[in-house]
Amino acid sequence: MYEKRNKKSSEAKTGLTSLASLGEFGLIDRLTRNVKHFHPETLKGIGDDAAVIEAGDKVILLSTDLLVEGIHFDLTYVPFKHLGYKAAVVNFSDIAAMNGIPKQMTVSLAVSSRFSAEALDEIYAGILMACEKYKVDLVGGDTSSNVKGLMISVSIIGEAKKEEVTYRSGARSGDLLCVTGDLGSAFIGLLILEREKSVFKVDPNMQPELSGFDYQVGRQLKPEARTDIRNLLLGIGVRPTSMIDISDGLASEILHICKQSGVGCKLFEGKIPIDAHTRELAKEYKIIPSVAALSGGEDYELLFTIKQDDYEKIKDISEITIIGHMTASSEGKYMITPDGKSIPVTAQGWDGMKSSFQQLP
Amino acid sequence: MYEKRNKKSSEAKTGLTSLASLGEFGLIDRLTRNVKHFHPETLKGIGDDAAVIEAGDKVILLSTDLLVEGIHFDLTYVPFKHLGYKAAVVNFSDIAAMNGIPKQMTVSLAVSSRFSAEALDEIYAGILMACEKYKVDLVGGDTSSNVKGLMISVSIIGEAKKEEVTYRSGARSGDLLCVTGDLGSAFIGLLILEREKSVFKVDPNMQPELSGFDYQVGRQLKPEARTDIRNLLLGIGVRPTSMIDISDGLASEILHICKQSGVGCKLFEGKIPIDAHTRELAKEYKIIPSVAALSGGEDYELLFTIKQDDYEKIKDISEITIIGHMTASSEGKYMITPDGKSIPVTAQGWDGMKSSFQQLP
Repeated sequence: MYEKRNKKSSEAKTGLTSLASLGEFGLIDRLTRNVKHFHPETLKGIGDDAAVIEAGDKVILLSTDLLVEGIHFDLTYVPFKHLGYKAAVVNFSDIAAMNGIPKQMTVSLAVSSRFSAEALDEIYAGILMACEKYKVDLVGGDTSSNVKGLMISVSIIGEAKKEEVTYRSGARSGDLLCVTGDLGSAFIGLLILEREKSVFKVDPNMQPELSGFDYQVGRQLKPEARTDIRNLLLGIGVRPTSMIDISDGLASEILHICKQSGVGCKLFEGKIPIDAHTRELAKEYKIIPSVAALSGGEDYELLFTIKQDDYEKIKDISEITIIGHMTASSEGKYMITPDGKSIPVTAQGWDGMKSSFQQLP
Repeated sequence: MYEKRNKKSSEAKTGLTSLASLGEFGLIDRLTRNVKHFHPETLKGIGDDAAVIEAGDKVILLSTDLLVEGIHFDLTYVPFKHLGYKAAVVNFSDIAAMNGIPKQMTVSLAVSSRFSAEALDEIYAGILMACEKYKVDLVGGDTSSNVKGLMISVSIIGEAKKEEVTYRSGARSGDLLCVTGDLGSAFIGLLILEREKSVFKVDPNMQPELSGFDYQVGRQLKPEARTDIRNLLLGIGVRPTSMIDISDGLASEILHICKQSGVGCKLFEGKIPIDAHTRELAKEYKIIPSVAALSGGEDYELLFTIKQDDYEKIKDISEITIIGHMTASSEGKYMITPDGKSIPVTAQGWDGMKSSFQQLP
């Protein structure tokens, strides 16, 4: 508390704005407010899962992601190989979210001298394992010393036909809201890893107790990108009207689609697909299971909308669940609970989640 | 000394390889030895200034660069705006080195809480100033907290006609070796800034004494990319056979061309273009001026080769200097001094340079 007060008064004194007071999205909005484009080939810049650049009869998709030790990953329980795999896959997921195919990537590493060449070998083994599985070419990068810790920056190029690219902005009132796979398990996996870490801190001779949690821990440490969904939808003749990947949590991603499409939504809590074991574990951690799905993030499933007319084509696909529909913007953004209550959808993100944990019994 | 011995014995004990023992190029070779490509569109991957990807009747060029505080820049004397400008320009230079046109870029920032939003505003003002000047679209990025310091990762997309792309590997024996602008000033600028920093450390009330060194300090803090050379060469009907930008120093870049083209070289020390004032300043710092050019780096000029037949077309272009020619690989890589001595060209880079300074009187 003291520190907080102190920070505020220092902000008032210096006239400078702290980054914490803006939040990530506020900061991005502020930094990019003066951006303008010079090239007509730049079809979409900042504001979607990837930029879209016209190139002949196709488009090039470009996205980039940064993973920082101590912020995005904790080497106490993340093996180097998994780290490399995940760094690659989360970028493939951004291309999948545009309905494109990931093709080429660059990887830059900044590493302090505490890391050995063997540790970096493992990171690259993970990256190349992901490249092999998803058929992506590693075509460049940069390697640098770092004063402290490890940082990985990945940029990915994808490809799509121009008419197939799916933006966040294409949802219309009446469209059905769909999600792939199931949600919330990556977050529960993180809680399990964090619990074992705190046990380890108390007694370093303890072995981590992760057996029986393979699915949740696997979802956290080795996520997959839903690059299969593009073909699945093509195969049944469904074209999504909007799409985004679920990296920050379902609630936050729904709000992105609503904002950029200018629509509202009605989401049914009881429809959110959650693995049965994850549901049990959430309760053990005193977390409402849907909250793990709504705010947990890192599941890297796809959230997308389709026209109502496509309902019959999609209703029996086991990989896809319809969880609600889009409404007029004036109707707001609501989640309907199984007992019929309407709750506003809000993006709590991490900080909000932590405080709601504390409020639970 | 003790620490060094200690490190070595710890390496022997753990069986792990320290990053320092490999060096940057050794590390990159090691990490990327298992890379394979899956897509025929990937015309060139790792190993040039940019990757080359076929896209219709054109090619897409992709490159990325990482700038880390405390490694690549020192905020004691680098203003935030200049930092942003330089981070963008060094990437444009990579595209210029492929004989392409920079088009779209992404910028990722990792920043510790010690930085204010106003500081990042300045970095972005510098980036957008570079975008405006070079007509490049900022199309995406990522923003993250950092445990310590500031890190900027830029990825750039460029465009070229397939037949115009210039690789490091195209030089042939007999080709003329050419360089744009002049060399060594960026390094002298760095020495001046470092000198003022040490004065400041002794007496923080001292004002930096930079007047009279505008050219050298400007070359260090606000380099430009030679995107103009592509049109200049097109205009006089000259197609470079190989090309690279000078980021690490002339010697290192010449060796890259020799290695990848499988040729040797004969470089004439007396022909290396060095600004007259920079030449004087180098002597004040007890540095042989050509050493500043050969090993200093960060001039971001272009080094390229042309066919001998193009000599007449290029000999009177003030922006271009012919500094030597390529030879058969068996003839080696030599610099000829004004008094006719042959010295092997070696890439000392930073560490080597520091020790050769110490050996000078």
